[in-house]
Amino acid sequence: MPRLTAVYRIRGEAASIEARAQALAVEQSVEMPVAAIADAGVLRDIVGRVETIAELVPGQFEVRIGLAVATTGPEPGQLLNMLFGNSSIHDDITLHDAELPDAVVQGFGGPRRGLEGLRARCGAVGRAMSCSALKPQGLAPDALGAIAARLGDGGIDFVKDDHGLADQAYSPFARRVAAVAAALRRSGARTCYVPSLSGNLDDMRRQVRLARDEGIDAVLVAPMIAGLANFHALVREFPGVGFMTHPAMAGAARIAPALLLGKLLRMLGADATVFPNHGGRFGYTPETCRAIADAARGPLAGLKPCVPVPAGGMTPERVPEMLDFYGRDTMLLIGGGLLQARERLAEAAAAFTRQVKAGQVKAGPAQAGQIAG
Amino acid sequence: MPRLTAVYRIRGEAASIEARAQALAVEQSVEMPVAAIADAGVLRDIVGRVETIAELVPGQFEVRIGLAVATTGPEPGQLLNMLFGNSSIHDDITLHDAELPDAVVQGFGGPRRGLEGLRARCGAVGRAMSCSALKPQGLAPDALGAIAARLGDGGIDFVKDDHGLADQAYSPFARRVAAVAAALRRSGARTCYVPSLSGNLDDMRRQVRLARDEGIDAVLVAPMIAGLANFHALVREFPGVGFMTHPAMAGAARIAPALLLGKLLRMLGADATVFPNHGGRFGYTPETCRAIADAARGPLAGLKPCVPVPAGGMTPERVPEMLDFYGRDTMLLIGGGLLQARERLAEAAAAFTRQVKAGQVKAGPAQAGQIAG
Repeated sequence: MPRLTAVYRIRGEAASIEARAQALAVEQSVEMPVAAIADAGVLRDIVGRVETIAELVPGQFEVRIGLAVATTGPEPGQLLNMLFGNSSIHDDITLHDAELPDAVVQGFGGPRRGLEGLRARCGAVGRAMSCSALKPQGLAPDALGAIAARLGDGGIDFVKDDHGLADQAYSPFARRVAAVAAALRRSGARTCYVPSLSGNLDDMRRQVRLARDEGIDAVLVAPMIAGLANFHALVREFPGVGFMTHPAMAGAARIAPALLLGKLLRMLGADATVFPNHGGRFGYTPETCRAIADAARGPLAGLKPCVPVPAGGMTPERVPEMLDFYGRDTMLLIGGGLLQARERLAEAAAAFTRQVKAGQVKAGPAQAGQIAG
Repeated sequence: MPRLTAVYRIRGEAASIEARAQALAVEQSVEMPVAAIADAGVLRDIVGRVETIAELVPGQFEVRIGLAVATTGPEPGQLLNMLFGNSSIHDDITLHDAELPDAVVQGFGGPRRGLEGLRARCGAVGRAMSCSALKPQGLAPDALGAIAARLGDGGIDFVKDDHGLADQAYSPFARRVAAVAAALRRSGARTCYVPSLSGNLDDMRRQVRLARDEGIDAVLVAPMIAGLANFHALVREFPGVGFMTHPAMAGAARIAPALLLGKLLRMLGADATVFPNHGGRFGYTPETCRAIADAARGPLAGLKPCVPVPAGGMTPERVPEMLDFYGRDTMLLIGGGLLQARERLAEAAAAFTRQVKAGQVKAGPAQAGQIAG
């Protein structure tokens, strides 16, 4: 029976860590005293198994536990449940990683469009992509449309909703997408608008269709608010749509960001994953950010790469450093950092665009029609 | 414009807490530099406002922030997003409470059946209710049915699925509910089976209907896995069904348990809320447990009370103490603690039932036909 390996980090003591690890293996599988289980098949195939325990630094242990793939469905919410559902309640345990069989990963399918799909969509050849945001919430749809048009004038590749924009009275989803799409059409910008989905699964389906009717083919979702299964359902149901994910409510999950925002969301279909860059409003370290980007883009059972979208208080001055850190296979997101230019928003956006293009690399010999150089 | 008050607890320093609180108010509202906002309406009505800052103990502050109700939808996922979406990423902040206008709370509606509905369903007059669980996952439906029948023979009021039971190959939902319902019918027990829902919203709707076809009218959901909006959609769509909630993935949320497992889940429709009791497998304190029970049962904008279900490693020996702590308006959940009786499960269940009934109070003078006494 196939197993996956869940990797936990536990704050503990050498004298008790084996018992703790064993308790964790039971909690994330049969969740009852093993001595009370009579069924040989369950004992052999279902009960979690401690594989290794290693002390990383004094008092911090890495515990690898084999869990039965069969317990996970495989279904996204159930996978999360079996990896960490109950043990999320213990504040001395973090879910650090999950090593899943390739068949499971491929079964979920990963990004449908991925890095290359998003590049093709916005026409960004050999350079990073740029993204900004429509803020603040509370503005009426036409005002948000005007902001989008100015960002478009400045050449921004993607403009997403502030993740707080949902379906509120001051900017109902349907009116907002119509207004923003119209404003971008009038401006002639190539900019792709990425509206934010909210509500239950049916609400989100309706919103995707409304967006599609306006020629919009990428949407923003916060999977830890929507429920992973519902996020994945949308990905499967709308294969022509790009999915950008937002980390709202993901940060508190005590799941390593690289696993949650990188590997798992990519596996379930995120084409781009937004996360807070180091040195901004949030406290992720450079190491954490690099790990997220590696999980999003690196080899993973043949899945398409997911675009890392470092964000969270970034400013145009940081663009060269961010391009240096993340390379070109990224989307840089600057929201408030551009909007603080106020009436000079289009100029600020144009400056951001120039900096992103300054990192552009000429096409190599493989590109038809170009002189190698 | 109506406001709600979000109450956060922040680990910080006196010298910087005001700036921190102001940043939090901005993060959970407009999420951009306030100086860049030109719209007077947004500045007046939408930007979060720090109401008070109090130092609870040195280095731990309680910050009360007024957020615009309009930003929350009101929709369950968006409410969570605006209360804590981004700030969940800061590991020094906890969302401690949310004081919502009565109209918002009543709009969500609360438990449809509540404490009295569940009492009426299982016939528990003047006493606490009892609950056990079908474990371990991995057993075939008929084996789970046999366990249910023995628990029923022992007089258990409610038997829920282990929350790890979903729709896996060894016990597909449809076959499991049919097998367990049949086993309980054959045994003649009054026991109510509470199967566990999993998957996306459509999966869960299908499962509720399958359960109803078998005469089952209560289900178990983990709202932090399903997504709050989807949980609430089920509550609204199936008014005759009782909803028991499970805290899987709720524990890591860095949201005070009393708020999340008590107030919010009750508001969205939990008739019963499972949580880990103090002194069991998890680390909640007695104070936290009491706060959960108070939030579930106490006055809340006229909503029906939600039944607290203390669980997580409880044993029959603890029943008198738990009845003393929680009183009669509770449902005691003992899973593995009964199952470890193995072939003597029915006797162990009967002993649990006797202890719960020992806490029973005679009906008072108001009950027709009874002699007051």
